Amino acid sequence: MKKFQVVGIGNAMVDVLASCDDDFLSDNGIEKGIMQLTDRERGVELYSRIGPAREVSGGSAANTIAGIAHLGGRSAYVGKVKDDQLGAIFAHDLRAQGVVYDTAMAEPGAEAETGRCIILVTPDGERSMNTYLGVTEFLAPSDIDEGQVAEADWIYLEGYRFDGPQSHAAFAKAIDACTGAGGRVALTLSDPFCVERHRDAFRAMIRDHVDLLFCNRAEILSMYQTDDFDEALTRAGSEVAMVACTDSENGAYVLTGGQRVHVPATKVDVVDATGAGDLFAGAFLWAQAEGMNPEICARAGCIAAGEVISHIGARPETDLKTLFAKHGLHA
Amino acid sequence: MKKFQVVGIGNAMVDVLASCDDDFLSDNGIEKGIMQLTDRERGVELYSRIGPAREVSGGSAANTIAGIAHLGGRSAYVGKVKDDQLGAIFAHDLRAQGVVYDTAMAEPGAEAETGRCIILVTPDGERSMNTYLGVTEFLAPSDIDEGQVAEADWIYLEGYRFDGPQSHAAFAKAIDACTGAGGRVALTLSDPFCVERHRDAFRAMIRDHVDLLFCNRAEILSMYQTDDFDEALTRAGSEVAMVACTDSENGAYVLTGGQRVHVPATKVDVVDATGAGDLFAGAFLWAQAEGMNPEICARAGCIAAGEVISHIGARPETDLKTLFAKHGLHA
Repeated sequence: MKKFQVVGIGNAMVDVLASCDDDFLSDNGIEKGIMQLTDRERGVELYSRIGPAREVSGGSAANTIAGIAHLGGRSAYVGKVKDDQLGAIFAHDLRAQGVVYDTAMAEPGAEAETGRCIILVTPDGERSMNTYLGVTEFLAPSDIDEGQVAEADWIYLEGYRFDGPQSHAAFAKAIDACTGAGGRVALTLSDPFCVERHRDAFRAMIRDHVDLLFCNRAEILSMYQTDDFDEALTRAGSEVAMVACTDSENGAYVLTGGQRVHVPATKVDVVDATGAGDLFAGAFLWAQAEGMNPEICARAGCIAAGEVISHIGARPETDLKTLFAKHGLHA
Repeated sequence: MKKFQVVGIGNAMVDVLASCDDDFLSDNGIEKGIMQLTDRERGVELYSRIGPAREVSGGSAANTIAGIAHLGGRSAYVGKVKDDQLGAIFAHDLRAQGVVYDTAMAEPGAEAETGRCIILVTPDGERSMNTYLGVTEFLAPSDIDEGQVAEADWIYLEGYRFDGPQSHAAFAKAIDACTGAGGRVALTLSDPFCVERHRDAFRAMIRDHVDLLFCNRAEILSMYQTDDFDEALTRAGSEVAMVACTDSENGAYVLTGGQRVHVPATKVDVVDATGAGDLFAGAFLWAQAEGMNPEICARAGCIAAGEVISHIGARPETDLKTLFAKHGLHA
C-alpha cells in the first residue's frame, strides 16, 4: 500500500467570499460564473468595493484534497503560500483536515503575498471568481518532492496552475516521479477560459500522460473546439482511459472502457456553487482509490458536490460518509 | 441632528470559528460558554489543535456597530488593529457595512498582531471563546477623537475593553467629550468573568455615567453578587435610567422609569450563539436612537439576536428590517 492515495498540486488560495447582485458584476467589469485573473492592484481595488466578506481556505485542488481527507483518504497537497497570516490560515486548514502539506512557504520579505480569490456570489448561487495569484504563481520544480509523489497512487493536477511560469516543469517532474513508480495521473481542466489559454499544453498532456480527466461541459467543448457535447465526450473517451465530466444540474458522465455511464445530480437548493467541481473530483478520486466502480465514483462525486453548493464555502461542512449512506450509497 | 447615532469602542478582533465536541473543550482546559483570555503562545497552540476554521470579523462592540449600520444607522467604531492582513480584513468589513472606522493601525513592526478570537462551537450551538487580544489591548486616550464622540447621540462602551492598561483613561476621555456635548453613555457588561475582574470599575461607571446598561442574567447576578435575578434587576433599575437585560431563551427585560417590560425570545434553531448579545444591543440601540419605545427596542433586539444565532458568525446575513416586518414589527 502506498503512503498516499492522492497528492494534489495546484494554486494555494484563501477565498474571500461576499454576496453581490448582478449589477455589481457588470458595473465592475466582472464576467459572471468564471475565474478571472487580476493583478494585485485590481484585487485591492475590487476588495475595497465589495461588501462584508468572510475568509475561508480555498484553491481548487486543495478543496479536492481536503474532501479526500474528510472522507478518510490518505492525501497530500503541494501549493505555495507565503509565511503571512493568510498563509498560516491556509496551511492550518489543510493540516487540520488531515492532509500532509509540506510545501516551503515563501519568505515574509517576498513582495507578493499569499494568493487570494475574491468570490462574488449572486442570488442565484453562481460564483464569479477574481484571483490574485500572489506567491502561488511561483510554484517551481524544486517544490516537487519526488519521493512524495512516488508514494502516491494518483497525482491530481490543477489546470489553473498552467498559468505559472515554472509550473509546467514542476508538473513534468511530478508526472515522471509518480508514473515511474507505477502511479497514475489525473488532470482537471479547471475552467473553459483556462482551456482557452492552455489548450495545446492540455492536449499534449492528455495524450501523453493523463489516466483520468475531470472536466465539465463548457471545458470539454472548449478543449475540442466544438458545440457538440456528445462528440466532445466521445473524443475525450477515445484519448483518455477514464473521463469524468460534470454537467451542472444534469449530473455527470463517466467514460471508460468504451462505456458511457450517466448519473443524476443530487437535488439541493444552491446557495454558493463554489467548489462543486472540486468536491465532485475529491469524492470521485477517493472512491476510485478505494477500488469502487465508475458509477459509484460518480454518484459519490455528485453527492459531495451537492453538499458543498448547499452552503457558503468550498469545503464540506457535513459528514460526507453519513450523506452517502442517506442516499443509499454504501461507499 | 448629530453626525452619529452611535459610536462604539471595544476590542477589534477577527473571529476564528471552528466546530468541536465537548470532550475537546475539557481535554484542552477550555471553559464552556465564556470568554477566556489567552496569551499569544496559548493562542498559537490552541489554533494548531482545532479543526478547519473560517475567519470572520468580530469583536463584541464591532458586531453591535455593524448591526446598527446594517439597519441604516449612522455609526462609527473605535478599536485597534495592526496593519497586517487580519487588520485589513477587520477594517474592510466594518467600512463595507457603512461604519466610519478611522482608528490608527498599529505599525507593521509592532510585535503583537491584530487580535483574534478562537471560537469553538459545540453541537448545542454554544460558543466558547479564547481571545488573544494582540494590539487591541493598547487602545489609549490618544485613539479617542473628541470631536467624533462629541458628534454622537450615544457612545457604546464594551466591558471587555476594561482589560486594557490605558483603556479606562480612553473611556473617561470619550465619556467627557460625549456627555459634554449632550450625548449619552451605554455600557455592556460583556461577560460574567469580565464583571468579576472589573466589578468596582463597572459599578463606579454605572453610578456616575451610564444611561443605558446592557447585560445578561449571569452578568447582572455577578455584578450585584446575588443569586436573585429579580433583586439584581431591581437594583440595576434603581441605578441606571434604562437597563436592557437578556435572558437567553426567556427573552429580555427592559427597566426604565420604574417600569419593567418583558419581551419573548425569537424562536430559532441555534447554530452558533456567537453575537447574540451584540446584535441584541445593536438593534436595541438603533431603535432607541430612532426614537422608538423600550418595548419595540427590545423586540427589535430579540429578532436581531435570533437571526445571528441561526447561522455561523456574529454579523447579520439576512436583511434585519425585512425580518422585523415579518415579525409584525414596523420599526
